[in-house]
Amino acid sequence: MDNRSIGVFDSGLGGLTAVKEIMKLFPDESIVYFGDTSRVPYGTRSKEMILKYTHSDINFLLSRGVKMIVIACGTASSAALPEIKQEFSVPIYGVVDAAVYSAVRATRNKKIGIIGTTATIRSGAYTAYIKEYDESIETFERACPLFVPLVENGHFDTKVTELVIDEYLSEIRAAGVDTLILGCTHYPLLRNAIARYMGDEVRLISPGEEVADFLKKKINEENRHSHERDERQYSYFVSDSVESFTELGGVFLEKEIDGQVSRIDIEKY
Amino acid sequence: MDNRSIGVFDSGLGGLTAVKEIMKLFPDESIVYFGDTSRVPYGTRSKEMILKYTHSDINFLLSRGVKMIVIACGTASSAALPEIKQEFSVPIYGVVDAAVYSAVRATRNKKIGIIGTTATIRSGAYTAYIKEYDESIETFERACPLFVPLVENGHFDTKVTELVIDEYLSEIRAAGVDTLILGCTHYPLLRNAIARYMGDEVRLISPGEEVADFLKKKINEENRHSHERDERQYSYFVSDSVESFTELGGVFLEKEIDGQVSRIDIEKY
Repeated sequence: MDNRSIGVFDSGLGGLTAVKEIMKLFPDESIVYFGDTSRVPYGTRSKEMILKYTHSDINFLLSRGVKMIVIACGTASSAALPEIKQEFSVPIYGVVDAAVYSAVRATRNKKIGIIGTTATIRSGAYTAYIKEYDESIETFERACPLFVPLVENGHFDTKVTELVIDEYLSEIRAAGVDTLILGCTHYPLLRNAIARYMGDEVRLISPGEEVADFLKKKINEENRHSHERDERQYSYFVSDSVESFTELGGVFLEKEIDGQVSRIDIEKY
Repeated sequence: MDNRSIGVFDSGLGGLTAVKEIMKLFPDESIVYFGDTSRVPYGTRSKEMILKYTHSDINFLLSRGVKMIVIACGTASSAALPEIKQEFSVPIYGVVDAAVYSAVRATRNKKIGIIGTTATIRSGAYTAYIKEYDESIETFERACPLFVPLVENGHFDTKVTELVIDEYLSEIRAAGVDTLILGCTHYPLLRNAIARYMGDEVRLISPGEEVADFLKKKINEENRHSHERDERQYSYFVSDSVESFTELGGVFLEKEIDGQVSRIDIEKY
């Protein structure tokens, strides 16, 4: 038993899709969320800068006394986590581990597609993890840098979105994958349009959902449940405006978070 | 006479379009450029964060001993410059002043359109400046948050770009403006597609070009020319990867800048 909070961070808002799933699966757990809204996006930055930002995000969550950390950011999970995992004594789980765990079990024809930010695809982390599980699986990767701006501007399923999906996914579809990892927390918001383009036979893997399942397995294995439902707390921290996070965060979580969001100076961590 | 450098900054690469024009008009002047590539984009951040970042960018340029500063970033010029201008003794010119100066002289029917980032349009700075010149001019403003990602991903003149231009500019076109301010340094790269959509009779104002003309006027007025052509230096500083800036910067400037780019830690300023 361990009543400390679960820490979750993302470069911005997208990680709340993981938080929503964690809340569903673990009604007794307290959660501390950090969204690095003053330095978002991570996906276009250099590896060195992503390492630096990931360090400070973890240090902030550790300062809040969390028992484990979930990196809900596809970019930080793929470009930074493999290197920094050993530097911290607290367990750190990324969306990459979770998505790969699920994808290698889902594929039948051993062809997996992976889409993510520029930094995620450049890292090669998904393919490296998949090959650790099964060397014979073929992977097809593609950076989709316009997907995040499309989501953030409400283009979930428009003609523009369709054209950009065709630009990014035509080769992966032609390769005949039966499983596609949506390697960025924003992408599940394009799920309908992507599913229609890829066809019914292709299984789409959303890291936000998978990470909650993965966490369940880990918490069970290590018996680190909380049993303090009455004392359970959700708190949200951001590095830019509280107002815009509160408003949009409510949409991602499908519940109000007024008064639960605070601003911190992430450059101090 | 004043042989110190002209300082120019932008949230990223876009300000190099202004630098190119300044180089053309002022072959004797040394230039120090800073691109805040570890914190780009500014256009989606809160006003408070834009103020903070703009302060540190100016402090960095002052540490390099510049004689004047050009804010080549539409967002910092509109959301921060009016408030912080008085805090510094060095002259600071923004692309807003320059674009407005030119637009109010260009319009015949006194209807000016303004497009920019979310933060630029939220600031209302363009309309406020225009009304200072001529209260009777009508303005039509629109945030175009997908334009920067489109430019950065090479969508200069594609079907996707056409659809997004129609989404953002249809009301401004319908309003019958005869002048349109492209209030973000990335937008001139969409000039062909925007010009075709708006029609030949609409004059497009590119702040990067205008700011160089504006600077010429100021430097002449104040007799602050440099006369050290033999000693003239161009130096570029960034807060993220030197490599990617060197590569893309060469495209913006249409000349090689290998070996002239250095990285700094902007959080120290």
